[in-house]
Order: sequence, then C-alpha cells, then structure tokens
Amino acid sequence: MLGIKNKKVKELLNSYKEISVLQKTLALLSWDLNVNLPASAGEERALQIAYITKLLTDRWLNGKFRDVLDRAVNKKEKFTQEEKAVIRNLKQAGKYYFKVPKEIITEFAETTSRSFLAWQEAKLNNNFGDFLPHLKKVIRLNQIIAQHLGYEDNPYDALLDMYEPGLTTSKMKRIFSLLKPELLELLERIKKSKTYKQKDGLKQEDYPVDDQKQLALFILRRIGYDMNSGRMDVSSHPFTESLGRFDVRITNRYSTSDFIESMMVALHEGGHALYEQGIKKEYSQTPLEGGVSLGVHESQSRFWENQIGRSYEFIRFVTPILHAFYPQQLMDFGSETFFKRVVRVRPGLIRTQADEITYNLHIAIRFELEDGLINERIDPEDLPNIWNKLMKKYLGVVPTSDSEGVLQDVHWSYGSFGYFPTYTLGNLYAAQFANSIRREIDIEKLCEKGDFGPILSWLRTNIHQHGSLYWPDELVRKVTGEQLNAKYFLAYVKEKYKRVYSL
Amino acid sequence: MLGIKNKKVKELLNSYKEISVLQKTLALLSWDLNVNLPASAGEERALQIAYITKLLTDRWLNGKFRDVLDRAVNKKEKFTQEEKAVIRNLKQAGKYYFKVPKEIITEFAETTSRSFLAWQEAKLNNNFGDFLPHLKKVIRLNQIIAQHLGYEDNPYDALLDMYEPGLTTSKMKRIFSLLKPELLELLERIKKSKTYKQKDGLKQEDYPVDDQKQLALFILRRIGYDMNSGRMDVSSHPFTESLGRFDVRITNRYSTSDFIESMMVALHEGGHALYEQGIKKEYSQTPLEGGVSLGVHESQSRFWENQIGRSYEFIRFVTPILHAFYPQQLMDFGSETFFKRVVRVRPGLIRTQADEITYNLHIAIRFELEDGLINERIDPEDLPNIWNKLMKKYLGVVPTSDSEGVLQDVHWSYGSFGYFPTYTLGNLYAAQFANSIRREIDIEKLCEKGDFGPILSWLRTNIHQHGSLYWPDELVRKVTGEQLNAKYFLAYVKEKYKRVYSL
Repeated sequence: MLGIKNKKVKELLNSYKEISVLQKTLALLSWDLNVNLPASAGEERALQIAYITKLLTDRWLNGKFRDVLDRAVNKKEKFTQEEKAVIRNLKQAGKYYFKVPKEIITEFAETTSRSFLAWQEAKLNNNFGDFLPHLKKVIRLNQIIAQHLGYEDNPYDALLDMYEPGLTTSKMKRIFSLLKPELLELLERIKKSKTYKQKDGLKQEDYPVDDQKQLALFILRRIGYDMNSGRMDVSSHPFTESLGRFDVRITNRYSTSDFIESMMVALHEGGHALYEQGIKKEYSQTPLEGGVSLGVHESQSRFWENQIGRSYEFIRFVTPILHAFYPQQLMDFGSETFFKRVVRVRPGLIRTQADEITYNLHIAIRFELEDGLINERIDPEDLPNIWNKLMKKYLGVVPTSDSEGVLQDVHWSYGSFGYFPTYTLGNLYAAQFANSIRREIDIEKLCEKGDFGPILSWLRTNIHQHGSLYWPDELVRKVTGEQLNAKYFLAYVKEKYKRVYSL
Repeated sequence: MLGIKNKKVKELLNSYKEISVLQKTLALLSWDLNVNLPASAGEERALQIAYITKLLTDRWLNGKFRDVLDRAVNKKEKFTQEEKAVIRNLKQAGKYYFKVPKEIITEFAETTSRSFLAWQEAKLNNNFGDFLPHLKKVIRLNQIIAQHLGYEDNPYDALLDMYEPGLTTSKMKRIFSLLKPELLELLERIKKSKTYKQKDGLKQEDYPVDDQKQLALFILRRIGYDMNSGRMDVSSHPFTESLGRFDVRITNRYSTSDFIESMMVALHEGGHALYEQGIKKEYSQTPLEGGVSLGVHESQSRFWENQIGRSYEFIRFVTPILHAFYPQQLMDFGSETFFKRVVRVRPGLIRTQADEITYNLHIAIRFELEDGLINERIDPEDLPNIWNKLMKKYLGVVPTSDSEGVLQDVHWSYGSFGYFPTYTLGNLYAAQFANSIRREIDIEKLCEKGDFGPILSWLRTNIHQHGSLYWPDELVRKVTGEQLNAKYFLAYVKEKYKRVYSL
C-alpha cells in the first residue's frame, strides 16, 4: 500500500490480510445463503458460518497481532495519514474482540443465531411471545457488551459507536429533535393537501420479471456499476455484499404487479456497490478497504435512490425507457404520473416501504425503543404496546399484528442494537453531500440526459476512493466544509415535497 | 455417529469436523468461481482459495491430531467396522500431508495454480510450447511426491492410489490389455457396418436454453434428485460439487443447436449427485462422508448416463416428453431415431464427446502417457507427437491442432496424474453393478415406464448409503460377489452395439 513505511504498521497489514480473506469467505457463505442455498441445507451452512467466524475471532485475538497493535497505538511515532488510519481502524474493529470476554462473544454468537430462527418463526406465526425470551437475552448480552466496551454517558453509546464511529445517543437525540417536529408538520400539511387525495390513474398491471431485471441492469450499467466486478441476483431482502474489490454483488427482488420497486432497489443497492467499486485498489486487503461506516454507506445508496432516482429529471430520462419496456402497461402515462408515484407520501406500517418523509420517523421510533431497552426504562414485555403507541403518535397508523409491527425487522434478532440510526444518518449525509455536489455540478440537467458520469466521478473523487481512510466526521467536513447536520436534509425534503404537494 | 465408542476415534472425529467444514468452504469458493465469479475477480478468489487451502493443510498437519491418528493406526484394539473405516480413511486422506514435506505441498499448490493459467492460455492460442515448462515442473513434482508417498513397483502407483485406493499400474494395464483388443475389434466392425454410414435425418434446429433447462430438471426430479438439497446452474464444464449432505449442486451447459447433450449431462451429474444425496446422514462431517473413490463415483454417473440414459427403453420413455418440449423440431422423429443418435459411435478427437466404445480408448492413451512421463520413458517435449501417433493407432483420427489434442484436458495442468484411469474404472464398475441389479430388477421395463424409484432404491441400499465405509474393492465384492473385472463392461457394450449396428 502507498505511504506505508513504518515496520509495525507493515506487520499489522500482513496480519490483517488473513482477517480480510476470512471476512470475504464469510461474506460468500452468507451471500450464497441468501441467494442460492437449497432449502434443506440451512443447518450445514450455519455450522460453516460458525466455524469461519470462530477462525476470524481467533485471528483478532492472536496475541502477537494484538501486541503489535497495542504498541503501535501507544507509540508517539510520526505516522503518515494512511498509517494512522490503519491503526485507528484496527483499534476500532478490534475493540469488540479485545474488550469483550471470549465467553460473551461466543454466547452472543450462539444466542443471536438461535434468536434469528425464533424471530423468523415468531414473525410467521405473528407471535411476539415466542420471540420475547430470545429478545430478552439479546438485550441482556448487549448491556453486558456495552459495559465491557465502555462509554461516558449512556451504555447505548457503546453500541452506536460499533456501527458508526463516534456516534452517541445525545448526538442522535439532537438530530431527531430537529427532524421530528419539522417532518411531522410537513406530513400533516401533505395529508391535508388536495394532491394527497388525488389518484394517479396507474392500474395494477403485469410487469414480467425478466423485463424488470433487464431494466434494472440497464439502469445499473448507466449509473456506472461495473458488471465485470459484480452481478445482480435475487433474494427476499435486497442487499449488497462485497466479496472483494472486484466482486461487489447486489441483489434485487421482483413483484410482477409493480414496476417501480425493482428500479429503486437497483439504484439503492447500486449506490452501495458504486462506493465499494470506487475504493482505491491498493486499499484491498488492508484495514482501509470497504466503506467507512454504515451511515456513509447508506448515504451512497440513498443518494442514488432518492436524490437521483426520485427526482423529476431522472424520471423524465427513464420515461421513454419505461415505455419501451412496458408499452402496453405504461404507454398512456408520462413523466408527471411516474414522478408523482415515486414521491408519493403515505404513512404506513412498514419501514422498508416508507417514503422520504416518514422513513426517518420509523427510525426515530426504533431509536427511542433501543435507548429505553438498553437503559431498562422499557420492559421488553411492553414492547408491542409501546411500539403501537409510538406508531400512532408519529405516523398516525397502528399495526393490527405484531408481524407488521414490532416483529417486522430482522435487526434485533441478529443482536444489532444501534444499527437503525445509521439509516437516518445516511439520509442526512446524502442530502448534505448532494448540496455540495450541486455547488459544482448541475445534477438535474445531467439526470435528464441520463449522463451520470460527472456525478459518479465527483463521488469517486471526494468520497469513494478514500475507502476507510477518513472517519465519517472527518470525511463530511472535508467534503462539505461542515459537520453533519440535519438542515440540508430538511431543506431538501421541504423544498421538494412542498412543490410536489403544492403547499 | 453410530457405532463409534472408542475414545481415540471420537477424538479423531472431533478434529475431522474442522477439516470437513474447511473442505466444504473450499468447495463453495470453487463452485462459485465456476458458476458466478465476475470476470475481474479471479485474482482475489485465487487468494481466498489459497488461504483456506493453507488452513486445511495446517489442520491435517496439526501435531495432536496426527499423534492420535498414529496411535489409533498402530493400536491392535478391537475396532468396530465404522471405527476401522474412520481410521483407514483418515490415514489415506492424510497420507499426502503426512508424507510429503510441507515445502513440496506449497510448491505444488503454487506451481499448479500457475500451470492451470498457462494451460488456459496455451489451449486458447494452440501453443503447446507455452505450456511445456509448466508441465515439466508438474511432472517433476509428481515424481517427487510419488517418492515421498512410497510404492512397491512403479512410482505411478503412488499417484494412482491417491485417486483410487489400491489401484496400481499393473492392475490398470491388465484391464486395458483386456479392453483394448476387444474394443478395437468392435470399433472396426462398427465402422464397416451399413448402419454406420446411415444418416438419422435429424437436422440442425434451435432448442431454446430455457426448454433444455426445464427438460433437464424434469429428468433430474424423475430420477430422484432432491431439489431441496441441490440446485442446477450453468458452467462451461459441467460438474457436481457437494457443499454438504443437503447441498449437492450440479451444473449443466446448453448448446442451442443440440437437445441431447444437456439431457445426458443431467443424467451424468445427476448420477454423481444421487450418490452424495443418498449417503447416511450420520456420516456427515465424518471421514465416511462423500463417495468412496473417484472410480465408484464415476460408476454412478456412468450408470445413469449410459446404462439408463443410452438405453432404448429410456429413450422410449423420454420420446413423448421430447415431443412435448420441442414439437416443431422433433415431432417428425421417433424413439428409433433418438436412440440411434444417443448410441452413435464416432471416433473423434475429444474425450468428453466420446461414445461408449471409444471413451476408454481415450483413457488408454492418457494412461500410457502418464506412466511413460512419470517413469521418464517419454520426454514431455515429444508429447504432441506421441499423442497424435496414439490417436492414429487407437482411434484412427489425428488432431490438426494441440488444442484438440494434447492440450484438450485440464487435468495435467491442475497437477493430476493418475486421475484419468478412474473414468475407465467408472465404466467397468457401472456395468458390473448393472449386471447385479438386473439379477433382481427389470431395469429396462422400469425405464420404459419412467419408474426409476426401484433402481435408485437398489443403489441407495447397496452403494449410496455406505458413503466411504467400504473401500472400492470391498464394496464391489459385497455388491457383485466378485472383484472388479472388465468382462461385464465388454459383454454389455458388445451385446448392445452388435444389436445397434446389426453386426
């Protein structure tokens, strides 16, 4: 790697290669599980994943590696920027292994793999009670883990920091205290508007899966996704998986009655993938490989999905293509109709189906609940009740079943507490980055022409190539000149949706 | 596992689990490489495979594991049959790691991964000279490996034994000395027959890939392949990969101008897969998992491909299905025509396209060459010449290019010397097993009805379930009452092809 001369850091890079290869191997085992695994092979695959995870843990806990890292961390040597970043990233990624006792790591892995299965069952049977004992264990283990990781104000901080370095509960509270009132007010006005009640005339039609796939691939190629370093498959929940710098795979899903979702998924997952495909090649198999945080990663998917894909100009560009793919189904409709559909605001029960206005309210609910659960202000038994009350309060809708309510997301069953807020950070980063891009580039004009090269090029230069060199706060200051704040997102949604709903 | 009480063996089984999981992980990395890998990701994948291979080697070389195994091997304890088989299989599979110095193992892995790439290039450019230096290294390393493994008469024996336990050069020579004259005579008579010159009237038509796929899946389900424990994908060379007892995947390939190959590939790979899917569940993750040898494995693929698929009765069964899938293309033709096509004998240049008569002659050539190369009776520089002479002698055809000649197969580039003969063993085992089945079951009658259940059931009971419990020689004696011999295969081809060619 460029810029690495320090002997200790070289030693660290050498050891890290094993960690990197094991992570990629795990990524393949998990990608294949979601995309290809035959129905009966679940248990075998779980064994394989558990074993490679164990090997990975062993590599982190390798005494010599830790020793060199400790000495590098404590040394007041003159490190280059890349050397510093290597040490910082290893310290951050290794924290979990170094500070949490091995028994807890093992117990956590076993508990969460069981609780994931229990959640699947419970969601299917709409029975929160069956998931409850597992959830309690997961919460208790997260509390223990937080104690070991350490924190200043709130144990939840220790968990947040694992997903977004430097993120704290109070920082997140400040963000939501700005977002919530404004979004709620905007939502109220939208709901009262005339446009809200208007029908767009689009009917239920049949959109063949293969056409949707071809259209998604067309869009992906057009925005710059390199199909020689990736592929698109099908899975029940779309995701992006990097099996290496030249093997960044995305998945999509197709409903034959809807032509929009698979297009938006292509833009969203494509955004994640463009980030990974744009990172400097020489960072491969080093601690600088991969996007820097979940929040920044989500900014890239949200940028392409919302800032680009949900713009009138993009829809103008894509309209003739939609007509070419679905002449019978869509020829009677134009850009105006398609645009209204992709920016339609509808408070709903399901986070993954939420629009740009209500999405962050779904996250606000989860954030409040996680903070309450970790700090024992909320009893897990009361979760369904409190969930439904918060849904009523923020979104004005109440789930009729826990499957559509508190059981809808996989995250808690996987053991992830502190992950959800990064989705909101992604929305904010995306708007703040977009604001900076707009100072230099006329995004809308380019979108209308379908000429995404200059936009990707800007992202590559300013964000992608750096991989994990700059931490999120450094990166956002470097790119936008200020720290992350909610004003760009609020300005963006207000301006856009006031226009859409003629407020 | 049933029947295992011995403490030492239990310890061995425990250690073997890690080896088994690493082997499955490697299998996934390799399956994905052949089926899914994006064009640019080759180098990254090679790194991943090399690292997991290194971990696997380390597990075999683990001092404690080897110690327990050595003590178990030397102990005159009363072991159960399964315990004995566990020890025997570990000794056999571990031999390479225990007897060959680690430097040679590493050098061999590196040399063969480079020589594989060189072979790909050389075949593409039809340039044997570019492959020659790599081939020389591979041969030299195989000679060194043979010395370390040890042998009684011929260093080639040490290599043969790695692919088929107990196989020796002299045993293989005996087999070919029986096969060759009879096959050559039969071939001469066939070539002189009237039928040989007749055209079957089948024209070049278009057979859509998706139809071929559906037909292959239909046949696979029909013969008993469990799609919940497997899947069928596409690769340039069809293969079967077991990623676990419940994840046995096959691949196929489709040429739009031919409806037969993909059907025969489905039967062939399906045969391999049925074997793996039929092994006792409790053998999973033990040294008894998986088919016992390459020869016995190939017997299962050849049985379904040739004994079943190339029978008149199977073709009778499949004819209405072919008509249903390809009405325009095939409605004018009937079982007689289809059968004549699938049993057509044509001496050709390419082993993988050979018929039942000439196939073993292709193998005889490779066997002679391997024995000559390992024993330095043949200079690698002369290979293309000698290859072409032997092709002329046995098959009466001479390649016009090395790509269609000495460069056609991947095996030597991978480092495999001693693998080819197992293909012929597979043909012989298949005929010998089929002879035993026919004593109990009317295969032809069942084939005509498409009722393959009783046939599969016989194979499950007598062969599949045992996995690697019995060694090939034990198994064949147990199943057929005598040791492997060529007479059943010769009787089978003579009877079948005399009828087909009205000799």
